[in-house]
Amino acid sequence: MALLVQKYGGTSVGNVERIKAVAEKVKATKEAGHDVVVVLSAMSGETNRLIALAKEFNATPTAREMDVLLTTGEQTTIALLSMALHNLGVDAVSMTGDQIRLKTDSNHAKARILNVETENLQKHIKEGRVVVVAGFQGRSEDNNITTLGRGGSDTSAVAIAAALKADECQIYTDVDGVYTTDPRVEPNARRLDSITFEEMLEMASLGAKVLQIRSVEFAGKYNVPLRVLSSFKDGGGTLISYEENKMESPVISGIAFNRDEARLTLSGVPDQPTVAAQILSPIGAANIDVDMIVQNTLGDGKTDFTFTVHRDDYDQATKLLNVVCEKLQANSVQGNNEIAKVSVVGVGMWNHPGVAQKMFETLGAEGINMHQIATSEIKISVLVDSKYLELAVRALHKAFELETEPTQEK
Amino acid sequence: MALLVQKYGGTSVGNVERIKAVAEKVKATKEAGHDVVVVLSAMSGETNRLIALAKEFNATPTAREMDVLLTTGEQTTIALLSMALHNLGVDAVSMTGDQIRLKTDSNHAKARILNVETENLQKHIKEGRVVVVAGFQGRSEDNNITTLGRGGSDTSAVAIAAALKADECQIYTDVDGVYTTDPRVEPNARRLDSITFEEMLEMASLGAKVLQIRSVEFAGKYNVPLRVLSSFKDGGGTLISYEENKMESPVISGIAFNRDEARLTLSGVPDQPTVAAQILSPIGAANIDVDMIVQNTLGDGKTDFTFTVHRDDYDQATKLLNVVCEKLQANSVQGNNEIAKVSVVGVGMWNHPGVAQKMFETLGAEGINMHQIATSEIKISVLVDSKYLELAVRALHKAFELETEPTQEK
Repeated sequence: MALLVQKYGGTSVGNVERIKAVAEKVKATKEAGHDVVVVLSAMSGETNRLIALAKEFNATPTAREMDVLLTTGEQTTIALLSMALHNLGVDAVSMTGDQIRLKTDSNHAKARILNVETENLQKHIKEGRVVVVAGFQGRSEDNNITTLGRGGSDTSAVAIAAALKADECQIYTDVDGVYTTDPRVEPNARRLDSITFEEMLEMASLGAKVLQIRSVEFAGKYNVPLRVLSSFKDGGGTLISYEENKMESPVISGIAFNRDEARLTLSGVPDQPTVAAQILSPIGAANIDVDMIVQNTLGDGKTDFTFTVHRDDYDQATKLLNVVCEKLQANSVQGNNEIAKVSVVGVGMWNHPGVAQKMFETLGAEGINMHQIATSEIKISVLVDSKYLELAVRALHKAFELETEPTQEK
Repeated sequence: MALLVQKYGGTSVGNVERIKAVAEKVKATKEAGHDVVVVLSAMSGETNRLIALAKEFNATPTAREMDVLLTTGEQTTIALLSMALHNLGVDAVSMTGDQIRLKTDSNHAKARILNVETENLQKHIKEGRVVVVAGFQGRSEDNNITTLGRGGSDTSAVAIAAALKADECQIYTDVDGVYTTDPRVEPNARRLDSITFEEMLEMASLGAKVLQIRSVEFAGKYNVPLRVLSSFKDGGGTLISYEENKMESPVISGIAFNRDEARLTLSGVPDQPTVAAQILSPIGAANIDVDMIVQNTLGDGKTDFTFTVHRDDYDQATKLLNVVCEKLQANSVQGNNEIAKVSVVGVGMWNHPGVAQKMFETLGAEGINMHQIATSEIKISVLVDSKYLELAVRALHKAFELETEPTQEK
């Protein structure tokens, strides 16, 4: 008998039949002897409907009032699922973000969770009830209704699981787990039974859009075992936890990638300690995320400074960099918005020094040129021309034998 | 400069254009120098939509979860009106029933208000903001979401006005005030500029469906001047207050009526003190409201006991009375479900003894037989055959000269 937090996303509660199917799943979990807290999103489409409605009144509605409006979506689904559970003879009670005292800061539309009180939750659980909680929402300390932003329901679920010290936080979604790479690119991609938080963070941030990165960080921080499962298909999904819990430890867990990269280089800037900050501060001020950064000293008191941004930010970043170029009397700004990033990810690689070599050889054998390389303890990323992305992913997936189950290592 | 609480019902916020029109009205009130608290219902149709949705999951959803579901309706409208007000440059903030700390008892679907905290409201008002409050909803002391039942938004508005000691509680609806009688029956019916709480209670309970009787009682209890106005038509509406505030005091304010009456008589019951209770207790236990009661002693140790019920309860009441008849060894049960009640209402009548006489003469002159008569200090009601209802209303309206403004009396 375990305490499980199950989160069902918008497509999982997208219509009457699906909500009834969730009720059946919850009932089955309860009958298997587990305590269950369910966290729900709004029905898919509902959030967009409400946003469109708001726009009829105000082109730029305040974030505070948008939060008041949008939180009705989850409040609706928790009531409906509770009714469906009652109909199946399951004792259940709905609770809003406020009712579980999910306290956040005051950043409307992207609030951060400060605290979850468990007293009310524990009371209902102890009395044998399924508690059906509205995800995505909370209350600020000044008693305003807040929302947690994109993927907020995942974050709610993890926060509740952490506060309750739940045995597992199960994220039901429309994919059945985390794969070695995107199956649309490599049909031989294999579902992973388990993966570490660190690997998942690298996979998620690099474009494997299964879980919101924020909820993975949160789960890692509070050591909440996280499981990704399909709402529509049976199966064990993928368990995300710390390495210690893994029975097997393959060198490489997967190949992640990001199509939408752009690269900018400011060449011939004075090689001084403050120069990186001078280049990046206007970029940061414009709210543009910077990813891979390389500074290459030329030995003549000059340096080339290169970084990547999301392709959507390319034009704006170029403009800002031209201003910097003039100010610093650098040589020129060069850019390329036709590039993609490919990464091999795996906690096993740190004690297998041959990984980088194998990666570079594999890409070289396919005639794929690497524009830039970045490494961390559990990841090696390279930039390649966009047109080579799929080829690179497939070649690396094969080279690291990801299509077959790894053999157990000690 | 006054503090006004304005309540807009479901049809007043029934679509985008109407909500925008409410925003304009609120803006105009604010610009006239008044402080405004707005209380809103859900968009008309929304409550029915949600009830139908609930029924897809459970034929008999619990009242607790229905309350969670239905309160999303008002939460939606308060966000939308706030956005519309912002768009007009009016500083506004939405608040749910919980956020204004509207505390109720735990009777889901028909909760009673215990208390409204004004601290938050006062703070926003003082800072020049329009506060847009969700009507119909509150929180129980054990932190469950509750609703106030039918007409609950009117009650919310009055409770808030009472707590804030507002100068006036204005109920915007789809009629432009209280009339001397139903204009559909008597086209010469005249809108009253003012009426007392007591008269309004008699008018409302007798079928002039302008305001929920509960909100009128509440307003009377806390002496909150109540004004009924049209959302769609300009005009001063009808002010409901205590007699002291009235400049004029006509003898009769209006002719109220109720079509859906039924009358039951248990004849030949023993004339004992406990007999009324023995007859009425099974009726009360079946949740059937009893209205006019007459007990007529025959002088032979027997009595006839007569009362009226709503026509919908006639069959059930007849069944229950047959059981009582046998138990008490009474003669028989007689009934008539083709009757209607007509009442003349007016605080002025208590010192004008001719009112009853004029009423009976008027009906007699039209050949209308009265089955039963009941009087109070401000009302005389008679039962007539249903077919005579409209004729009786028109004849009385004319006899008491209600089509013309009363002359001032001292």
